[in-house]
Amino acid sequence: MDLTEKYTIKDLFDKVEDKTISELEGKELTFGGYTKNNRFSGTIGFLNINDGSCFLPLQIVYGPSDEACKAAKLGATVEVKGTLHVTPEAKQPFELHATSSTLVGDVDETYPLQKKKTSYEYLRSIPQWRMKTNTFNAVFRVRSTLAYYIHEYFHKKGFLWIHTPILTSNDCEGEGQTFDVYADVKKPTEFFNKENVHLTVSGQLHVEPFALTYGKVYTFGPTFRAEKSNTTRHAAEFWMVEPEFAWAHLSDLCDLEEDFLKYVVKKTREDCKQDMDFFAKWIDKDLPSRLDEFVEKPFKRVKYEEAIQILQDAVKNGHKFEVSDIKFGLDLGSEHERYLTEQVFKGPIFLTDYPKDIKAFYMKQNDDGRTVGAVDLLVPEIGELCGGSEREADYNKLLTRMQELKMNIPAYQWYLDLRKNGSIPHSGFGLGFERLVMLVTGMDNIRDTLPYPRCYKDMEF
Amino acid sequence: MDLTEKYTIKDLFDKVEDKTISELEGKELTFGGYTKNNRFSGTIGFLNINDGSCFLPLQIVYGPSDEACKAAKLGATVEVKGTLHVTPEAKQPFELHATSSTLVGDVDETYPLQKKKTSYEYLRSIPQWRMKTNTFNAVFRVRSTLAYYIHEYFHKKGFLWIHTPILTSNDCEGEGQTFDVYADVKKPTEFFNKENVHLTVSGQLHVEPFALTYGKVYTFGPTFRAEKSNTTRHAAEFWMVEPEFAWAHLSDLCDLEEDFLKYVVKKTREDCKQDMDFFAKWIDKDLPSRLDEFVEKPFKRVKYEEAIQILQDAVKNGHKFEVSDIKFGLDLGSEHERYLTEQVFKGPIFLTDYPKDIKAFYMKQNDDGRTVGAVDLLVPEIGELCGGSEREADYNKLLTRMQELKMNIPAYQWYLDLRKNGSIPHSGFGLGFERLVMLVTGMDNIRDTLPYPRCYKDMEF
Repeated sequence: MDLTEKYTIKDLFDKVEDKTISELEGKELTFGGYTKNNRFSGTIGFLNINDGSCFLPLQIVYGPSDEACKAAKLGATVEVKGTLHVTPEAKQPFELHATSSTLVGDVDETYPLQKKKTSYEYLRSIPQWRMKTNTFNAVFRVRSTLAYYIHEYFHKKGFLWIHTPILTSNDCEGEGQTFDVYADVKKPTEFFNKENVHLTVSGQLHVEPFALTYGKVYTFGPTFRAEKSNTTRHAAEFWMVEPEFAWAHLSDLCDLEEDFLKYVVKKTREDCKQDMDFFAKWIDKDLPSRLDEFVEKPFKRVKYEEAIQILQDAVKNGHKFEVSDIKFGLDLGSEHERYLTEQVFKGPIFLTDYPKDIKAFYMKQNDDGRTVGAVDLLVPEIGELCGGSEREADYNKLLTRMQELKMNIPAYQWYLDLRKNGSIPHSGFGLGFERLVMLVTGMDNIRDTLPYPRCYKDMEF
Repeated sequence: MDLTEKYTIKDLFDKVEDKTISELEGKELTFGGYTKNNRFSGTIGFLNINDGSCFLPLQIVYGPSDEACKAAKLGATVEVKGTLHVTPEAKQPFELHATSSTLVGDVDETYPLQKKKTSYEYLRSIPQWRMKTNTFNAVFRVRSTLAYYIHEYFHKKGFLWIHTPILTSNDCEGEGQTFDVYADVKKPTEFFNKENVHLTVSGQLHVEPFALTYGKVYTFGPTFRAEKSNTTRHAAEFWMVEPEFAWAHLSDLCDLEEDFLKYVVKKTREDCKQDMDFFAKWIDKDLPSRLDEFVEKPFKRVKYEEAIQILQDAVKNGHKFEVSDIKFGLDLGSEHERYLTEQVFKGPIFLTDYPKDIKAFYMKQNDDGRTVGAVDLLVPEIGELCGGSEREADYNKLLTRMQELKMNIPAYQWYLDLRKNGSIPHSGFGLGFERLVMLVTGMDNIRDTLPYPRCYKDMEF
């Protein structure tokens, strides 16, 4: 039953694409996959199977004596040998005329997927099956493809992938609640000899020394927040991409961010055409045009103070926000961000130079004394896609800020010392990977972009 | 200070390699990096800086009036503009004659690296600095490169990267101790509504349903073991690669494993020549020949029972093992594995078809009733590099085995049901990524292959 080195269904569609499919006309080929659809009229049967190599199935045509094909119920796996026929006039560009078939894996009454449309909510309770539905089959293929191109992009640009730790004893001031970790909860400090071991909320602090040595680095791994939020955008476990590079200021950071995002979205759309067609048809009709704009139009760069002015003018002109007391220092809500991206700029914007009091301690202090070199990338429908900044590279400025914020300085001395010894200007951003998956697929719940979502009150297996 | 779009030191070495470096003769170029070495004679100075793009530094030649270069102490960062001169007769193939220099980041007395050789043990206590030493600079570049080619290999072969969860409530029978996770230790079940949430020890069970849908998938992410072992080969947090593919039997698995490992080792050696030269010179003189054999010679395939016979014969012929009562059922120790790989087969071997009682419940039961379709890849010096198996695809056989082992069946019902609905033969293996880094670099302590090692009694930041 060795199917390696044989054609996949994707290979056939690729050969349609590059117009070489006719080479396979009449060839005897073997495919294995699970049943998507099966109709038998009494004289002829049509069995659609998916081998996982691409979104679209292969149509198998079989005769009345083919017991294996006849028996293939939804979800059952079959292996079918047959003759390939190119059918340029038909709905599907080729079909396999079965000559010999085996029912490899039958299904029984415990198989939970039916032809009828099933709710996403129910499907979340069966993460071991939902990737066999059209929607999730496409989502996880796109997720994997995006993830691959993230690595490809950075590799081509000379960035090293650094595996920052998941377990950390470092404080993560201002990043929300963390999960605690114990080898033995009765002897909490015994295993690591540390008071406080938790799951990382960001690899940034740990990756900065690597950026100061290798110049260009990034992390791509799981991060954790123990927030009791039950929104469609928050998960307790999610993946983050955090590039960090030296000799880079805020505008370099924006350049990288834009180039990077456009690259991975473009490459993924090219690779996952069938999946993207499905999303456009069934999930979000506006997706293709939104993504066209995303990859084609330059992202605008807007200063926070400019944005405040625009929002104040909107209020003056009668626009209603829930929070309408708009002034310098306001931490913009999603209603404000959406107004800016959807109503005013009609596309993604880099919002830069935020008030220092609403941003993290490590961000570069601007000369005005009240803003920092921070940048959030805001995207229509999605909201904040990335957050980043130039980092404060000056030891004394950073120390003073940490003292103002009453941080535990000794715990951060290792990080501070990076500014004492060979300090270089450097910048970085964090991308919540699932937000990118949502952007590209049009799915609007983070739970539907994660293979096994871990959210507040929500964990299977 | 924008150095993007400019030449890196790696670019220069690449141009030496492809013999186009002379194009840059006399060109004015700018480089930024940290100081590796600086000698000033009174009339002329030689400053070596590393920009992180490759292992080898750039030699800068400067005059007595260049205060910035003169002041550059070990670890200090400088930015230097100068004229490039190709020096085919000299030790280094080019040098930069400085025309204008800036000391960007000075060092002070807290900088912990000195010219003299420092112990690995001490360097483990300063993970934020040790990547600036030659050894660790090379190790982490090689680590990143290996990691990239793992993704490239699987992407090219049509495998999807699946992000299996870190947090899991699933039992992981027989995989050793786990770390428990709490949002609030006083209300242990509150956050996830689960009795028992811990850090994953393997993504295999979670990735299998994806293999049964997509055909070819893999995981690559952190895994955890709360074992109180203080060896040079165990870490509490380490990265695992776990490919899983359908329609595959044990021999297909061995084929994939061998092809995969040879590919990533070969590509990494090509990309990291300077680093590999360093390891061969300073870490392990036998490394190049060992790796040559690794990528060139086919791995032998040996059945467990054959290996037992060989070991029994060795004992008869006077060879001394610490455990010399060798018979079917013995869980081979590293002395036995080393004897087989280093003395008998003189290279990596696939050891297959182990007794079922020393292997995991999910492995395919062979017809003999006493062995399973398991395979360990054993490598000289390293020991076990990968462990894998064909999985039991038959519902009743798997259930019976789980009952024999008195496992908690309801907790695994979701996994069992995969065998009821569209079951397909499938196989997979797990590679401890750090073991691969050790194999390729010649480093012999796992702590020296992890950016921030987390081991028993051992965690910085």
